[in-house]
Amino acid sequence: MGAPLENIPNFESDEHLLPVVAQDAVSGQVLMLAYMNREAWEQTLATGNAVYFSRSRKRLWKKGEESGNVQRIKEIYLDCDEDTILLKVEQAGGAACHEGYQSCFFRRWDAGQLTIVGTRVFDPTQVYSQTKSHQEKPS
Amino acid sequence: MGAPLENIPNFESDEHLLPVVAQDAVSGQVLMLAYMNREAWEQTLATGNAVYFSRSRKRLWKKGEESGNVQRIKEIYLDCDEDTILLKVEQAGGAACHEGYQSCFFRRWDAGQLTIVGTRVFDPTQVYSQTKSHQEKPS
Repeated sequence: MGAPLENIPNFESDEHLLPVVAQDAVSGQVLMLAYMNREAWEQTLATGNAVYFSRSRKRLWKKGEESGNVQRIKEIYLDCDEDTILLKVEQAGGAACHEGYQSCFFRRWDAGQLTIVGTRVFDPTQVYSQTKSHQEKPS
Repeated sequence: MGAPLENIPNFESDEHLLPVVAQDAVSGQVLMLAYMNREAWEQTLATGNAVYFSRSRKRLWKKGEESGNVQRIKEIYLDCDEDTILLKVEQAGGAACHEGYQSCFFRRWDAGQLTIVGTRVFDPTQVYSQTKSHQEKPS
């Protein structure tokens, strides 16, 4: 069932950023939240790998460009307002987080304390160079 | 394992909005993305039900306040930057979307077309009054 598409997703301008949820296509684990501008969206479609816009670096960010942990797009969903994107991905390397965890959401809020519940897949100091450490932070 | 918490989540001001992913605690389905300011976060913790900040209505929005489809908080996770919140919820009524679907992400992007893949749980015209129709849109 198709529908004609006009400005979907709803990027209000070339600079406008939409939030993007990346979810593991198999396990259903929510891996991270990042942002796309129109160019990132178009590059994601063109390459089949997640390309985000880094708000801190103010440039396109090919997820995994340094770590190798790319996200291969399996399915894309849009929400009812067409202003949020959900990617179901295959996460190369098994870890989406620059801190080496499968998911960026590796800490649970327990009555005002944060409990680490995720499993560390890699050691960030072994994956990122010192000067570029934490380059893959999503925001 | 706990850690001392300073301004976590990282609301930079009382008006600052952070994105919040709501995920079904049992099925793992991503239900919606909405936003919280500090007050919404505090009311969520205090009540045990999701309270968001509606960007369109510019006020707190107790999810389900009109439809009855509240989201009971089961677990809360924070991402590595502490600027995104993941809620694992029990979705009352079985539908998070104001259009009557389980998830707001009920349409899949298929090569430039949107395919409805979600199942409609309720008819929005039966749940929302005409004048208030679509009041629960997240943005």
